[in-house]
Amino acid sequence: MSLMTVKELEDLMRREFPQNQIILESISSRSSRVRIPVNHSHLRPGGTVSGPTMMSLADMAMYLALLGEIGPELLAVTTNLNIHFIRKPESAQDLIGVCNIFKLGKKLAVGEVKIFSEGIEEMVAHATCTYSIPKS
Amino acid sequence: MSLMTVKELEDLMRREFPQNQIILESISSRSSRVRIPVNHSHLRPGGTVSGPTMMSLADMAMYLALLGEIGPELLAVTTNLNIHFIRKPESAQDLIGVCNIFKLGKKLAVGEVKIFSEGIEEMVAHATCTYSIPKS
Amino acid sequence: MSLMTVKELEDLMRREFPQNQIILESISSRSSRVRIPVNHSHLRPGGTVSGPTMMSLADMAMYLALLGEIGPELLAVTTNLNIHFIRKPESAQDLIGVCNIFKLGKKLAVGEVKIFSEGIEEMVAHATCTYSIPKS
Amino acid sequence: MSLMTVKELEDLMRREFPQNQIILESISSRSSRVRIPVNHSHLRPGGTVSGPTMMSLADMAMYLALLGEIGPELLAVTTNLNIHFIRKPESAQDLIGVCNIFKLGKKLAVGEVKIFSEGIEEMVAHATCTYSIPKS
Repeated sequence: MSLMTVKELEDLMRREFPQNQIILESISSRSSRVRIPVNHSHLRPGGTVSGPTMMSLADMAMYLALLGEIGPELLAVTTNLNIHFIRKPESAQDLIGVCNIFKLGKKLAVGEVKIFSEGIEEMVAHATCTYSIPKS
Repeated sequence: MSLMTVKELEDLMRREFPQNQIILESISSRSSRVRIPVNHSHLRPGGTVSGPTMMSLADMAMYLALLGEIGPELLAVTTNLNIHFIRKPESAQDLIGVCNIFKLGKKLAVGEVKIFSEGIEEMVAHATCTYSIPKS
Repeated sequence: MSLMTVKELEDLMRREFPQNQIILESISSRSSRVRIPVNHSHLRPGGTVSGPTMMSLADMAMYLALLGEIGPELLAVTTNLNIHFIRKPESAQDLIGVCNIFKLGKKLAVGEVKIFSEGIEEMVAHATCTYSIPKS
Repeated sequence: MSLMTVKELEDLMRREFPQNQIILESISSRSSRVRIPVNHSHLRPGGTVSGPTMMSLADMAMYLALLGEIGPELLAVTTNLNIHFIRKPESAQDLIGVCNIFKLGKKLAVGEVKIFSEGIEEMVAHATCTYSIPKS
């Protein structure tokens, strides 16, 4: 069971990240599923979704999966993000990010985020992400 | 000598990336220097600049350094970006990105981007970035 | 179905990598499973398996999964390897590496390797790996 | 000034890593320079030095630069290593690794290692590396 619900995490995001466009779809043990509605502002030459859009999605998916476990530690910060862009995303499909936390230590959390164009089985990007957890 | 000038790269960015906020300050052999004017939209809880802002800066610095070498290959795409967030950036300072390309092959270019808060010597983030170069 | 069998890959490894200690356990579509029998030469202070032992295992797992798909392209070379060390491996257990290739393009292959201490469910390390495929 | 001298670090390596082949050439503030004498056991098909040889060199360079700063904390462990293989190393030249630590925090140290074939200016590989520092 997660420490925070989708509703609580949504409230937190609205308050703390007012410009955020990413939607939290579900949260469960050490995992999250997020969505970004893709529009023209996310596209880049070639009609593909920009890399930074996918990096933001990966980072937010991990942040939410982590807060779901440890509670509203707003000052948890990314220390490392590594992303492989694998295939060209569809320009007309939302992007979905699925995060799984591999390790949840006292100091560090490490996880992966798989990114998909909605409805298409093959991954478009794969990220691994490390967060530093503040002492509470 | 770069194949493209700062002026030519600025024109290309205005045309192809109309929402881009990053400014190209200089371009030289296998390198670039870029700036993002930090405003409240880039901040996150704790008064620090968000990770995605720095990831975008790194990715764009590498893209511009690469186009400076190979010309307007708009379809050059990032295949990998790895970023370490090292220190909390200043919330009231612009971020500066300095890119150096390590390798410029036929298929792949690999480089690093060092990110600084303007006027402060210690790096705030370090990225390595790989681009795939389309066949021309 | 793989292009090369376990037997053919073992012969290739014996011939081309005579010092190799890694055992290929199975190969299937875009995946491999490898083992390294851990002995005192792989240990480091604290009684844990050294990082380089795990990096070698990850690299070899990906190489074999790739050759299983594309045939004996000995000159396929690693261009990037990123590894997260997650938990302390058991000093008395073999390490198992399980590779899945995410992308098999003409120029590049990208995959992940999950590393386990035999018989223990939690991952000890997670690697992502990119190989450059020579033109044949 | 480093907390540990080259001599002290060499003694520590002989004692704790008896199979180690890497030579520490110098140590200074937040940096180290190491060498591995390349022999046939490090080569792989194509007459190039194997990836794991370079990964080991990077990891050891960072470990020694770190111990040079914090003293003989043998249980400092790598949490992440990311390496880009940039050019084919010379098969008949030693490899040199030059480490610079970007950040030396209480919990984590982050640095880079540039790897060269001796006498050749262009880098053959570039690694970034994170160590977790035990509480002392």
